[in-house]
Parts: sequence; structure tokens; C-alpha cells
Amino acid sequence: MNYEELFQLIQKKKSFLCVGLDTDLNKIPEHLKSEEDPCFAFNKGIIDATLPFAAAYKPNLAFYEAQGMAGWDCLKKTLKYLRSQSKDIFIIADAKRGDIGNTSGMYAKAFFDELDVDAVTLSPYMGKDTVSPFLEYKNRWSVLLALTSNASASDFQYFGDKKGQKLFEKVIGTSKTWGTRDQLMYVVGATKAEALKEIRQLIPDHFLLVPGVGAQGGSLSEVAKYGMNDHCGLLVNSSRGILYASSGKDFAVKAGEKAKELQQEMEILLQQ
Amino acid sequence: MNYEELFQLIQKKKSFLCVGLDTDLNKIPEHLKSEEDPCFAFNKGIIDATLPFAAAYKPNLAFYEAQGMAGWDCLKKTLKYLRSQSKDIFIIADAKRGDIGNTSGMYAKAFFDELDVDAVTLSPYMGKDTVSPFLEYKNRWSVLLALTSNASASDFQYFGDKKGQKLFEKVIGTSKTWGTRDQLMYVVGATKAEALKEIRQLIPDHFLLVPGVGAQGGSLSEVAKYGMNDHCGLLVNSSRGILYASSGKDFAVKAGEKAKELQQEMEILLQQ
Repeated sequence: MNYEELFQLIQKKKSFLCVGLDTDLNKIPEHLKSEEDPCFAFNKGIIDATLPFAAAYKPNLAFYEAQGMAGWDCLKKTLKYLRSQSKDIFIIADAKRGDIGNTSGMYAKAFFDELDVDAVTLSPYMGKDTVSPFLEYKNRWSVLLALTSNASASDFQYFGDKKGQKLFEKVIGTSKTWGTRDQLMYVVGATKAEALKEIRQLIPDHFLLVPGVGAQGGSLSEVAKYGMNDHCGLLVNSSRGILYASSGKDFAVKAGEKAKELQQEMEILLQQ
Repeated sequence: MNYEELFQLIQKKKSFLCVGLDTDLNKIPEHLKSEEDPCFAFNKGIIDATLPFAAAYKPNLAFYEAQGMAGWDCLKKTLKYLRSQSKDIFIIADAKRGDIGNTSGMYAKAFFDELDVDAVTLSPYMGKDTVSPFLEYKNRWSVLLALTSNASASDFQYFGDKKGQKLFEKVIGTSKTWGTRDQLMYVVGATKAEALKEIRQLIPDHFLLVPGVGAQGGSLSEVAKYGMNDHCGLLVNSSRGILYASSGKDFAVKAGEKAKELQQEMEILLQQ
């Protein structure tokens, strides 16, 4: 999927919602635990209920790796199921990988060939070598961490040089030359909504993946105000707020309701 | 394993060699490809031949993930085999993970509980949140990327502030307060041997994991000259130089010879 196609998908779905599949076996409803594959049963329920309202899904790999082989199996089944249910969906592997040429090439192969996702999140610390092997794949995306939503983001991301440039600005400014807006996207936390304004001056066109709305306290309207461009330019992620809206047998219904709420808010924002 | 125990292990083995298990199915000898599990057959051969000369092993997770389920299975078998062969071995999962609290906790569980490794490499970009969940495990280590050996390390790691401090110095200076020398280690590339001198002023005691000797061109004696402390303080990694010393039926014999060469050089350096 390229830049224009992603925008078309968002227009069609009237949504720029990304559902974060942070599936934690300790948090899924009790009645699912007797299923043959509780992780997949949960994901299937969430997908079925949220698919009409979502433009993207973002499985967070840590949650699957923590389950060992069974988790890897659940992830593969989930991705296959997603693809079988809709062609109009963008899938991001939230892996935050960051390694160099040789190794990074293996990761690119793992995510794009083996798992067939559209995009992978990457950590920029090791520089261009981390990203180059991913950019060799056509119609696949690298999503670089820029300014994250967590409390300790300021430990290093605001670290600055003599010209008053901060690390996250340096990361964006340097990396945007490595590929096109069809290949590169950036993670900017919703809890840093005002920084979006400044970031939009550096990269007016690029898509931003914005976590932190909901459980982490970020505001959707603020994010749209400062971050939206004429191609939407945003994928806003919600994980826990949707997945664990209910811990009962109605978990999927409640997840669907939460996703619909966000989609409806997004539909209005897209019309503005 | 704590700091003192790691030093004792190095003294006992007369080696601070870390063998990087970057197992690439495209590079293993032809005759292994008919084995039931070619990846494990290769790793077992390498381990059997190098175990007398190595203090540590470092499987690089990308190489296993790129093989899908079979790779994950090979990794688990390899780690189990390593543990069954020797108690005197330090195992590092080279994963370069970097996520926040909730997710980082899942990664810590995956590596320490599920895979039972001694240490995990982590990317510092997202700050303390990335490392904290790992530090909750006793006798387990977080190995933070500081100054890496790849060409594009300079894209961001040398980025500097008004006081002339560079990002990698900021990362070391800030993160060393998050835990003790029993918990934290840093990655410093062998290709940056002279920077080791400066890094030793910031962290005289900490262990450093040093990749880049051999295939990447770093010099072992230079690394020892600038990086060694009174507890050795070094684990020097070699991957390709050992693993792919021969592509024939003698791959294990040749790997053992390469590991022995490095161990003998290290034995002399440890006596100085």
C-alpha cells in the first residue's frame, strides 16, 4: 500500500483508527481461557467487532513473544485472519526493532515476507543502517520512533545540540531523506500533541502513527488539530481502551462500541 | 549471575569471548540442510566445538525470527542445549528491544522467564521506561546500546548538546544511575576502540559488550588496551568469523579453531 492508497482507505472507512492488539492473556475474559487458543479467540472477537471502524491494526509483538511458541502461532493466525476478512486494512507490526544491515535485513524478511505486514515500527538509535533493508521492499513502510508518549521519553528524545535542535527533531530531519512519504512514517505520542505542530513543519506530508489516546491520556481532537494534513496524515492508535472495555462475555460488543465511538469522532474530524 | 560471578567465569574459562549465534540458513553447510532441524544441527556443532573457549553466547534474535516458528523452536532448543552442557556460560539474547513499561514488562518476561537468558540487549531511545521492568529481575542483565559498530552509528549517537556532550555519553551518563554494575552493561563497538577510553572515564566498572572484532574490522588488542578494567569488564563478540570459518563438513572444527585462537589471545591479555 502506498501513501495515496492509505489515504483512500481512510476515506473509505471514514476512520483513521488503529486498533492495538496488545493481547495480554492475564487480561482476557475468563470464559475464553478454556478455548483451544485463548489468544486467537480473543483477537478474533476483537477483530470481528472492530473491523467496520478501523483503518489499521497494530499487534504489539512483545505480547506474543511473551507467550512463547503459542504466541507466535497466535500472531500468525491473527494476521492471516485479518487478511482473510478484509483487503481494506493496514497492518503494523509494533516491534520497535533496531539493528544493522545484515541483521536488519533478517528482520525485514521476518516481517514483510514471513508475517506479511504493511509496516514495522523501528527504533532509530543505530541510524540509517537500521532502516535501509526495510526500504528495499516496495509498498511496505518503516515507522520510526520520533517522540514517544511515555514518561521517560524526555530522558533522551529532548536531548539537544547547540542549534537548539532536539534529538527527535534531528531523527526526523535526518531520516526523512532516507525514503519517500510512501515508505516512512513516524511515531509521535498523543500526549505530546503540541509538539505535533512543530513536527508538521519538519514533515508536512508524512503519516504519523499516534499512540497514547485513551488510557495514556492523549486527546483525539488535539491530535487532529495539530497533526492532520490534507491526506489525513494520521493513524491514531487505541489499545487497552478498546481491548479491555469489558472483561466479561460482552468484551467484543464493548470493544466494538468503543471503536465506533472513536470512528464517529474521526469521521467528523475528517470532514473539517 | 552477578558482576563478581561473571568475572569468576571469565577467569575460569581464561576467556572473555562471546560467540554470536547469528545462524543464517543460507550460510550453513550444505550437508546440514537434510537434517530434521538444520538450524539446531548447526548450532549444536558450533556449541560443541567452541564451548571450551567461550565465556558467553549471544543468539541474535533476528536470525531466528526470520525463520518463523521453526526459528523460534531452534532458539529454544539451542538455549536448552547450552544450559545442559555447561553451568559456566553467560547467555545474551541480542534483541535490541526498546519499548515502554507495560510492553517492556512483557519482553522481560519473554526473555528471562520463557527463554531463561542472563541478559538482553536494549535500545535506549525511549528512556528509563524501557529498562526498568528488566531491572526487576535479580541476577539478570540489561545491555544498553551506547556506541555501536555500524557505519551509520554516527547519524544520531554523536549528536551533541551545548556542553559538548554527545548522545552516547548522555545515554551512558543518565542510564548508569538506573541500576548497579550487577545489572547494567553497555554495547560499545570494537570499531570505536579509542572511544572506549572516554567511556571508561564515565563507567570505569561496568561490563562492556563489544561487537565488531573480526568481520567488522575491530582489533582485540586495541579493545583490551582501552576497555579492560580490573574485573576484565569486557565480553568481546565474534559471530561470522567463527560461525562461517568453513562452509564444509569441517565447519565445527574450523569454528573451534577460530574460537581457540581468540581465547588464547584473550588469555594473554587477561594476564597483563
